[in-house]
Amino acid sequence: MYEAQVHCVPMASPSDVSEVARLIDEGRLSAADIVAVFAQTEGDGYARGFAAQSLEILLSERLKIDREEVRQRVPMLMIGGTAGIMTPHINLFVKRPSSARPSGQKRLALGVRSSRVLLPEEYGTMVQIEEVARTVREAVAEAGITDTADVHCVEVKCPAMTPGRVQDAQRRGKRVVNTNPAAASSLAKGASALGVAVALGEIETSTLSDEVICRNWDLYSRVASTSAGGEQVACRVVVIGNSTTSPSELVAGHGVMTDQLDLAGAYEAFRSAGLSVQDGVLAADDRQRIRAVFVNAGADFAPGVRGRRHTMHSDFLWSYSGWQAKAVAHAVVSAIVGDTLLLASAGAEHQGPPGANLVCVIASG
Amino acid sequence: MYEAQVHCVPMASPSDVSEVARLIDEGRLSAADIVAVFAQTEGDGYARGFAAQSLEILLSERLKIDREEVRQRVPMLMIGGTAGIMTPHINLFVKRPSSARPSGQKRLALGVRSSRVLLPEEYGTMVQIEEVARTVREAVAEAGITDTADVHCVEVKCPAMTPGRVQDAQRRGKRVVNTNPAAASSLAKGASALGVAVALGEIETSTLSDEVICRNWDLYSRVASTSAGGEQVACRVVVIGNSTTSPSELVAGHGVMTDQLDLAGAYEAFRSAGLSVQDGVLAADDRQRIRAVFVNAGADFAPGVRGRRHTMHSDFLWSYSGWQAKAVAHAVVSAIVGDTLLLASAGAEHQGPPGANLVCVIASG
Amino acid sequence: MYEAQVHCVPMASPSDVSEVARLIDEGRLSAADIVAVFAQTEGDGYARGFAAQSLEILLSERLKIDREEVRQRVPMLMIGGTAGIMTPHINLFVKRPSSARPSGQKRLALGVRSSRVLLPEEYGTMVQIEEVARTVREAVAEAGITDTADVHCVEVKCPAMTPGRVQDAQRRGKRVVNTNPAAASSLAKGASALGVAVALGEIETSTLSDEVICRNWDLYSRVASTSAGGEQVACRVVVIGNSTTSPSELVAGHGVMTDQLDLAGAYEAFRSAGLSVQDGVLAADDRQRIRAVFVNAGADFAPGVRGRRHTMHSDFLWSYSGWQAKAVAHAVVSAIVGDTLLLASAGAEHQGPPGANLVCVIASG
Amino acid sequence: MYEAQVHCVPMASPSDVSEVARLIDEGRLSAADIVAVFAQTEGDGYARGFAAQSLEILLSERLKIDREEVRQRVPMLMIGGTAGIMTPHINLFVKRPSSARPSGQKRLALGVRSSRVLLPEEYGTMVQIEEVARTVREAVAEAGITDTADVHCVEVKCPAMTPGRVQDAQRRGKRVVNTNPAAASSLAKGASALGVAVALGEIETSTLSDEVICRNWDLYSRVASTSAGGEQVACRVVVIGNSTTSPSELVAGHGVMTDQLDLAGAYEAFRSAGLSVQDGVLAADDRQRIRAVFVNAGADFAPGVRGRRHTMHSDFLWSYSGWQAKAVAHAVVSAIVGDTLLLASAGAEHQGPPGANLVCVIASG
Repeated sequence: MYEAQVHCVPMASPSDVSEVARLIDEGRLSAADIVAVFAQTEGDGYARGFAAQSLEILLSERLKIDREEVRQRVPMLMIGGTAGIMTPHINLFVKRPSSARPSGQKRLALGVRSSRVLLPEEYGTMVQIEEVARTVREAVAEAGITDTADVHCVEVKCPAMTPGRVQDAQRRGKRVVNTNPAAASSLAKGASALGVAVALGEIETSTLSDEVICRNWDLYSRVASTSAGGEQVACRVVVIGNSTTSPSELVAGHGVMTDQLDLAGAYEAFRSAGLSVQDGVLAADDRQRIRAVFVNAGADFAPGVRGRRHTMHSDFLWSYSGWQAKAVAHAVVSAIVGDTLLLASAGAEHQGPPGANLVCVIASG
Repeated sequence: MYEAQVHCVPMASPSDVSEVARLIDEGRLSAADIVAVFAQTEGDGYARGFAAQSLEILLSERLKIDREEVRQRVPMLMIGGTAGIMTPHINLFVKRPSSARPSGQKRLALGVRSSRVLLPEEYGTMVQIEEVARTVREAVAEAGITDTADVHCVEVKCPAMTPGRVQDAQRRGKRVVNTNPAAASSLAKGASALGVAVALGEIETSTLSDEVICRNWDLYSRVASTSAGGEQVACRVVVIGNSTTSPSELVAGHGVMTDQLDLAGAYEAFRSAGLSVQDGVLAADDRQRIRAVFVNAGADFAPGVRGRRHTMHSDFLWSYSGWQAKAVAHAVVSAIVGDTLLLASAGAEHQGPPGANLVCVIASG
Repeated sequence: MYEAQVHCVPMASPSDVSEVARLIDEGRLSAADIVAVFAQTEGDGYARGFAAQSLEILLSERLKIDREEVRQRVPMLMIGGTAGIMTPHINLFVKRPSSARPSGQKRLALGVRSSRVLLPEEYGTMVQIEEVARTVREAVAEAGITDTADVHCVEVKCPAMTPGRVQDAQRRGKRVVNTNPAAASSLAKGASALGVAVALGEIETSTLSDEVICRNWDLYSRVASTSAGGEQVACRVVVIGNSTTSPSELVAGHGVMTDQLDLAGAYEAFRSAGLSVQDGVLAADDRQRIRAVFVNAGADFAPGVRGRRHTMHSDFLWSYSGWQAKAVAHAVVSAIVGDTLLLASAGAEHQGPPGANLVCVIASG
Repeated sequence: MYEAQVHCVPMASPSDVSEVARLIDEGRLSAADIVAVFAQTEGDGYARGFAAQSLEILLSERLKIDREEVRQRVPMLMIGGTAGIMTPHINLFVKRPSSARPSGQKRLALGVRSSRVLLPEEYGTMVQIEEVARTVREAVAEAGITDTADVHCVEVKCPAMTPGRVQDAQRRGKRVVNTNPAAASSLAKGASALGVAVALGEIETSTLSDEVICRNWDLYSRVASTSAGGEQVACRVVVIGNSTTSPSELVAGHGVMTDQLDLAGAYEAFRSAGLSVQDGVLAADDRQRIRAVFVNAGADFAPGVRGRRHTMHSDFLWSYSGWQAKAVAHAVVSAIVGDTLLLASAGAEHQGPPGANLVCVIASG
């Protein structure tokens, strides 16, 4: 039996893993129990890599295994780019051996799995949908979750397309979904989200084909948050939900903000995790119960909001539209929590209806 | 007797003034009654100039006066740079001749004045503080406001320092407060805000000197929002408040968010204008009463929020820290209003306590 | 008979047209003789529009026609975005009525034409290739050029795809080449360049089809420089060449730098215009003979140069890859000229071989 | 006796140190002989740190010492930010034990030294000037250079001011030269360059005081290239010159481009290293003799070039003015070499006259 935990610590810079070291050194968690990392770093993609390498060094030293083994063992889902009032930080997902008896109430349960290695020509296709679906099902089972309605968030980090991978496929006579790496990576994120939806029964496999990926936006998962990284070769999956068999003291919940101004959708996420929202903010007593909040922002998947135009795509900074989406969603949810220490990712391909934010909350029960 | 109005219309691009033309052409306002413009444009400073020139052309045609006369007659306070989910738009301040009898209740009153032309060596000094104070007092009087507590917002657009102005002063043997144009412009904005504070009795002139400007942050106005532009040679002042002598149907209010997460401060702004906030958002009936909302964002004047670090200054995009501050404040207030059509400016020198947002609301009574 | 001239003047900011006004006011040129404008502005696309509007206002005042008529009469080819040591400036193409007798030597000849208005669904297709080809042929004839080998540069500004134009086509049941505006605009630029190649006999129409556009990079023009703008509805063409029937005192030439380091290709451009390059720079006597230099940069159409990687596309500033290409080509050619007052455009679809720079020089004979 | 070498290898990404590993693994150099690293990385400051950490890991593994010891032993001068056609790469400075007899001709000699740890309040002051001067003198002596005219380049990486260091000084009651970290770091770079100038006899100590630093630009070194990094606590110095006592097969040279267009100054650098420039480019036979080229770019320390305005500071990308300066200088010198594998740094405080580029060339003799 395992007790699921999540620890969230701030970073002073992309390579600052001192707060993780402190948790380990103070005996608050065992390095061996870390099953996945979900971090928000400032800076560009290189800063993401820098942070991952710094964590690998730390865990390699504490676990006395080499860095390659750390990479295999602990999926690192690094979300780069901060804007607005975002605070760089690291979430550690932990599964601690426990002999405690489950309370019988629904409590936090985690499942962490990786798919087989995907070939570049499989990115953004039905093959990826199916592999992700299979991996999510395994992770749900591992978590001890029997009802998919108890899954509140599925984080997927899938391989990004890179120029090298395009060439690799072409060298082998294979065709990738798009030779533009960004477009292909977007399709890969979309396929990953659809894979989650299939695994959770949100959509029927029969409605799917290569053609609907990133085309039919009526198909989506309400709990999937997917991103892509060139450092990945397989799809790394973290399932977050509740189970009556869990001895954890924490509980997960989620809500969907149908657009950037939908505060009611955000409140639902907190209420779903057993917290009270009063006069627009978390009740004072409930603030310290928050353990982690993850928001997947969709602002840049809509040309505007409630009939109004925004400038995320038309402005000369359009290449950072995802950062702007994150800044907005993060600010609105932070104001409810009263704290900026929450993760905001972007890229909303089949992750909720277009323009929506998915909000996942983990709190003490 | 004049009836104060404010009209807020969206822009499809920096040069799009078609909605202003429509208001005039449909007889909803007379071009001759426009006393000031307060606009939020996308893009950089050149886009601001492009918008102003486009408005000048329109008003020149409708008023049958040349563009230079338009410039003299109608202060154009252009706030450039949009981020997040900001919606470019134009606020028109209007004073329409009216024979209506005041209701006796406090209603919207506007005062618009310009200082004398300032010399570059006066920017950011006590001279500017005094000139702005004098101009604000005149505008308050013009508005018919007798109690400074009825002033809810003072917008000031002052001259920015430019390399050419530095050289001009030096050629005349004068010393500017800082040869770095950005630093000098910041001092000019700070002096403008202190001038507002003096005029409204928020601080005593005796506590002021050149040395406190942009140094002693304990000195500030709670209703001043100032910005600087290279196109200005004098300080243009718009006083927004209420007066029992006003026949307007609108009413102004304001509130101060002490930090980016202070929703209560934002709610106060709406309540101050007679609107109800319920469960974190404007009451449904009250949404259509909103005529304009102006937020001056201060996020980038604090290194963090509630003990958390943000990356506005440390990240490679730091030069846009003001844009990020605007994106955050705009998102949070928009979520309350349920609409993104609100103006957000940045640059918080002596404009509220460090890190605060000033929120001004104009609504139908 | 017309004498072809080109005047190149610097701009102090995007709206600064004072040097153009001065040329007119000092009698050095007649506003009525300006047949086209080719300008390089700093800032983003809005600055481009601001500059065009400022020129329209000036020409409207001097020609006593309204701004719409200026727009029809004088094609404004605005190239936005400066980087490196680029100097914002305006080139004026002038055709002055002249009774001078041609010298019999090849001298500068200009042809300026516009295609019919193109529909959005025609952008980036064979239709555009054919319309541009037809327009270029007309402009060549207008210039009095009988041998296409005497054409040294063809500047084309074609309509850019915009979200509004995509919607317009879709509303009419038509299909655009790509619903992504940037991708469709790239195809439009490519089709324009192929149209030039067809008109000049560089490639056979029979080798062309919709499918080769922006796919078969072996097809290109060595003298075409094309760009797209949302303000255009037709293709505006300026042909620059030499003719023995021209009474001009100037002469045009061109060269192709096969990559960013190909100085010999740049030297050829200057020599082609009758100038000497000595020890890597223009001969001192020849520097003052330069009237205008136009470079179309292709660095970002190659993943590297001479086997070395560059970071134009992979870096977080990749959206400005064209700006970086311009900065590089501009710096290298400026060092030869000894002056930074030269225009650099980017976007190399079918404009020379991939990675090449086209260099056009206009000098006094 | 030591043989000085320099090896220059490209990087595929900031963490790619595979080419360094290959040099070691193929026996072309011994990890123990690496005395300093001078690298150009793409991306922002975090990428710089990522590259340094990756090199530390590699050298730690090969030298079987811990990473901290690597840091102490091998100064890593990381220059971040690429633009234009810059190619990320690593220069390794090597001193290999050798029993070869010097040829008696002037050959490459290297001196690598570190100053004592500097306190934040010493940054940008006379103390730093003196410490750098002392360290440079030691490095010159270590290199076996007896005539300072034989010093062709001095690279200095000094500590950057950071918010934490400002606070540290203030906590101890000390005053830093400027509480703005960027301004203080600029002063530190300036003081470092003046320290070089003092050590080499380019200026008299008696002309110096705290007040001239970053004020009197008539004072400078013609061979100093300095940068600052928050990772440094002391000034790391690499002296590059020639000595008749050196058994190296390489030779160093340098030249000064007085402005961005001064090709003659660049040619001088190559000729100074014994190479021929013909018709603007390195003679074909001499191209393969190039081992390394370092350019320190000064474009952004001048408001324009030869009377022309540039937009490095006025444009919205002004915060990257140093990157633009590097792009320009790199492009011009690369065109001479016929290769983009050369390092370009920026930040020209007292490093040559304002607006100048310093060019150092190392070639086989």
